Amino acid sequence: MADPLRTIRKQTGNFLEDFRPGQVFRHKGGKTLTEGLFTTFTEFAMTANPLAKNARYARAYGFDGLVVPPGLAMLVAFSQTVEDVSENARTNREYVDMRFGAPVYVGDTLEVETKVLSMVPHRKVANLGIVHVQSTARKNVGASDEAVVMTWQRKVDVFKRDPAAELHPGEAEPDPVACELWLPPYDPKVDYAAMAHLSSADSYFEDFEPGTLIEHSRGRTMTSEHIHLTAILDNTSQVHCNQFMIDQNPERYVGGQLIIFGGIPFTLCLGLSSPDVGDNALGDLVYPTGRHTAPLFAGDTVFAATEIRAVRDFEGRPDLGVVEALLLGHKFVRSEDTPATADTPAGWRKVPIFELERHLAVKRRSHYA
Amino acid sequence: MADPLRTIRKQTGNFLEDFRPGQVFRHKGGKTLTEGLFTTFTEFAMTANPLAKNARYARAYGFDGLVVPPGLAMLVAFSQTVEDVSENARTNREYVDMRFGAPVYVGDTLEVETKVLSMVPHRKVANLGIVHVQSTARKNVGASDEAVVMTWQRKVDVFKRDPAAELHPGEAEPDPVACELWLPPYDPKVDYAAMAHLSSADSYFEDFEPGTLIEHSRGRTMTSEHIHLTAILDNTSQVHCNQFMIDQNPERYVGGQLIIFGGIPFTLCLGLSSPDVGDNALGDLVYPTGRHTAPLFAGDTVFAATEIRAVRDFEGRPDLGVVEALLLGHKFVRSEDTPATADTPAGWRKVPIFELERHLAVKRRSHYA
Amino acid sequence: MADPLRTIRKQTGNFLEDFRPGQVFRHKGGKTLTEGLFTTFTEFAMTANPLAKNARYARAYGFDGLVVPPGLAMLVAFSQTVEDVSENARTNREYVDMRFGAPVYVGDTLEVETKVLSMVPHRKVANLGIVHVQSTARKNVGASDEAVVMTWQRKVDVFKRDPAAELHPGEAEPDPVACELWLPPYDPKVDYAAMAHLSSADSYFEDFEPGTLIEHSRGRTMTSEHIHLTAILDNTSQVHCNQFMIDQNPERYVGGQLIIFGGIPFTLCLGLSSPDVGDNALGDLVYPTGRHTAPLFAGDTVFAATEIRAVRDFEGRPDLGVVEALLLGHKFVRSEDTPATADTPAGWRKVPIFELERHLAVKRRSHYA
Repeated sequence: MADPLRTIRKQTGNFLEDFRPGQVFRHKGGKTLTEGLFTTFTEFAMTANPLAKNARYARAYGFDGLVVPPGLAMLVAFSQTVEDVSENARTNREYVDMRFGAPVYVGDTLEVETKVLSMVPHRKVANLGIVHVQSTARKNVGASDEAVVMTWQRKVDVFKRDPAAELHPGEAEPDPVACELWLPPYDPKVDYAAMAHLSSADSYFEDFEPGTLIEHSRGRTMTSEHIHLTAILDNTSQVHCNQFMIDQNPERYVGGQLIIFGGIPFTLCLGLSSPDVGDNALGDLVYPTGRHTAPLFAGDTVFAATEIRAVRDFEGRPDLGVVEALLLGHKFVRSEDTPATADTPAGWRKVPIFELERHLAVKRRSHYA
Repeated sequence: MADPLRTIRKQTGNFLEDFRPGQVFRHKGGKTLTEGLFTTFTEFAMTANPLAKNARYARAYGFDGLVVPPGLAMLVAFSQTVEDVSENARTNREYVDMRFGAPVYVGDTLEVETKVLSMVPHRKVANLGIVHVQSTARKNVGASDEAVVMTWQRKVDVFKRDPAAELHPGEAEPDPVACELWLPPYDPKVDYAAMAHLSSADSYFEDFEPGTLIEHSRGRTMTSEHIHLTAILDNTSQVHCNQFMIDQNPERYVGGQLIIFGGIPFTLCLGLSSPDVGDNALGDLVYPTGRHTAPLFAGDTVFAATEIRAVRDFEGRPDLGVVEALLLGHKFVRSEDTPATADTPAGWRKVPIFELERHLAVKRRSHYA
Repeated sequence: MADPLRTIRKQTGNFLEDFRPGQVFRHKGGKTLTEGLFTTFTEFAMTANPLAKNARYARAYGFDGLVVPPGLAMLVAFSQTVEDVSENARTNREYVDMRFGAPVYVGDTLEVETKVLSMVPHRKVANLGIVHVQSTARKNVGASDEAVVMTWQRKVDVFKRDPAAELHPGEAEPDPVACELWLPPYDPKVDYAAMAHLSSADSYFEDFEPGTLIEHSRGRTMTSEHIHLTAILDNTSQVHCNQFMIDQNPERYVGGQLIIFGGIPFTLCLGLSSPDVGDNALGDLVYPTGRHTAPLFAGDTVFAATEIRAVRDFEGRPDLGVVEALLLGHKFVRSEDTPATADTPAGWRKVPIFELERHLAVKRRSHYA
């Protein structure tokens, strides 16, 4: 009889005791943005900005080709960090100071590194702690057009694997990362007005008024498609795609069912807002903060609204202005006996799922239409 | 306390009172045909024509590369008109005189304009009217290869938003649009016979017989995938993707569930017919008429058949012939106590869902095999 | 009254009586590997090898660009043979001696030919026989880079259509097919170590130990997405996509529901194993045998494990080694009253679904890290 096989099962991802302030992860894989990935997500999110849909428009504006929307660039870059940072997380607390830099085009390859800024044991919950990291995504490493495309921080609650293991709390300084939004120059020789019909007539800088809340008209029902969407980003976190695992212990997992990867409502809400807010933007400058406030499941319908908080000049760019906004995503859950309100039908309860502070670089009608 | 936010909710799409004969819409967005979009739809439709599957075959035949099937070109172009023309429609009555022109390749960008030809209030139903429009799709506007790829008319029933609003009935002349199917020349130096095994042996021009009905052997069950398929065409009409909206008022919406965008059975029936009818065609010349005759829902299985109505010479092209056909799509619904018929099992009822008159430019065996 | 239409229904695929030893099928279609197809499957399978995800890595290693994983190349090539060989099969018995040759890149076009090696009536079951075929896939036929990409044999049980038809049993010799795995040369000038972080640190040749069983940590739940995945491979076999057909005769079809095309668990198990076994491989040399041992349905969760059987030098390539492995796929089905075992929870039964012998060409840490 042959010797019995020795079984090996490798650890996937890191647990709380594995994190040390100052530690650097150079994440595996990297990802080339193919036209397949671009189409799946740009259209999934119902993005309306013609920079992401119409290559002749994008090139006329001074980009190299179709522009990967910031939501997709964020998704691809963020997903590269999941295995090392949040594979064994309970929840993602928030995104902080997400800044955009070089434009991302189809064919670009993104690679990501992460530095651990701090690890703090949870004050109340045993075997849990808050890990704070800083990540930076670069494109085309080693090539002449290598550049930083985005950098951000996030805080996440991570489980301990071994209750008796020693932790390594502490803090490290974030690295200074040069990351400023690249924008094509304004070219007075380009006939922008001839292309103005390709975007909305009323989402120029001059149209935004602080103190208004724009309710975006469209909703989008999620289905089991989310499993494929998440896998094609290389995010293999099991709570999104392993129903058998959920079935063994439904009480342990939120909702007792597969939960949708947060990046999906993130990018979907950006897309749902784009006909009213984003389609005359040349780019997003920064997301100062962002967080998920409730889970999302197949069968839920996602809606969005944008609160306009402030408008200001864009230094050095008289053709543009900065709009400071708060993007809000929500869904409805059945709630028997709940009466109707101004924005919710009877028998339903409105549940906020996502919020994102967002600064956009928006075209001025005076220069572009 | 901060001032309360002023809520803005923009109108999406046009209502009956917004249409005026002679009015021209230059639709927003435009769309570049990426390889992602091409693969999703060409294969979704189970297209069998090697011009759409095999790049070396397509180039040997004189095309620049993989040829976007007419069904996909139609879907992309048509979807660009949905927001302005049919976002608030009750039903799409029919397609009329859909003519094809320049070939569409991966990487081409389509932009579409629509002219309102007439608006007529419905004789019986209040707050409804029939809008008749003419649309034209061009590729690569502003570039050296700018060309008309297709032009068509359609009639659609549109709701009034405000019962008291003034309507603008009347008629305008259609624009003359030069749009003739581009075909690669016959080249006697090309060894077409060496490639003949890549298509069916029995779908050449000589094989078609007027008075026959070809029942295509394959069926295809639709799933919730249709939501994604529709969104990636930029068609955000809510009856296809917003289950919450349906839930508020199921009686108002056909079937009380999400309804599948008509372009999907349109392109699927073309694909289902292609192994028997389309895979030795160099292109579709025109769809004289088309209409949907019943709705389609997730869970339905789509079938197709083609009636061969006439065959005739193709003037100036002795290597080709014209086949005039009627493409018919159907599904089955459960129908207790219904006995079996020649083409329907017991307990089921055959429901026609789609019909399309179709003229194809088909290769002659004498020249190509 | 017009003459009634004459109905034509063409036979799809071949039945047992249609096969003759020595017969050659030149399969219809061919298939160009677009970025859409590449993304859908490479990511669906959760492939971790950066050769398939990161174009700058692939080029640095001496490939022309992103490398199509062997599982996807197999899927595309195999699917081209389905209509002629197994459209009317009961089961696919096994794959034999699947050897890989030239690398496949996005943009390559694959065409496939099949030779019938033998047909043997089933000894016990009437109207059934075993057909043994040899298939070879070439890329870019007629171009300067035309090459064999893979060659394999398979055995399949095929139905007779007409019980009274004469069969043609017998044997023919397989064709000798030159097909050796192409690998980029080792280049001492390339800084491989600088890219080592992009793949796992512990899946180099030196890390594999015969007699171990590596349980891959991830599972993936299948959904109705399989219908689309199968269609985009041109596999239109109705048991995968025609629910209406199943509904007419549920007892005839395995599980009484749509069954997932075997190529899907084939490629998924390869992907699930890749973080532990495949991500430092430069290619797969051969799959000596493979077979499906149980059906797979939407709702099942797929898992995988790899048994390491042997390791040996790679003649002529001191930078590589050969790992001989057995890839095993399984799922769980509910099984009331079944007690827990070492690897199965109570109330479930572990069901093997797939096994594949696999020889990989793996990098040595000594040369690459």
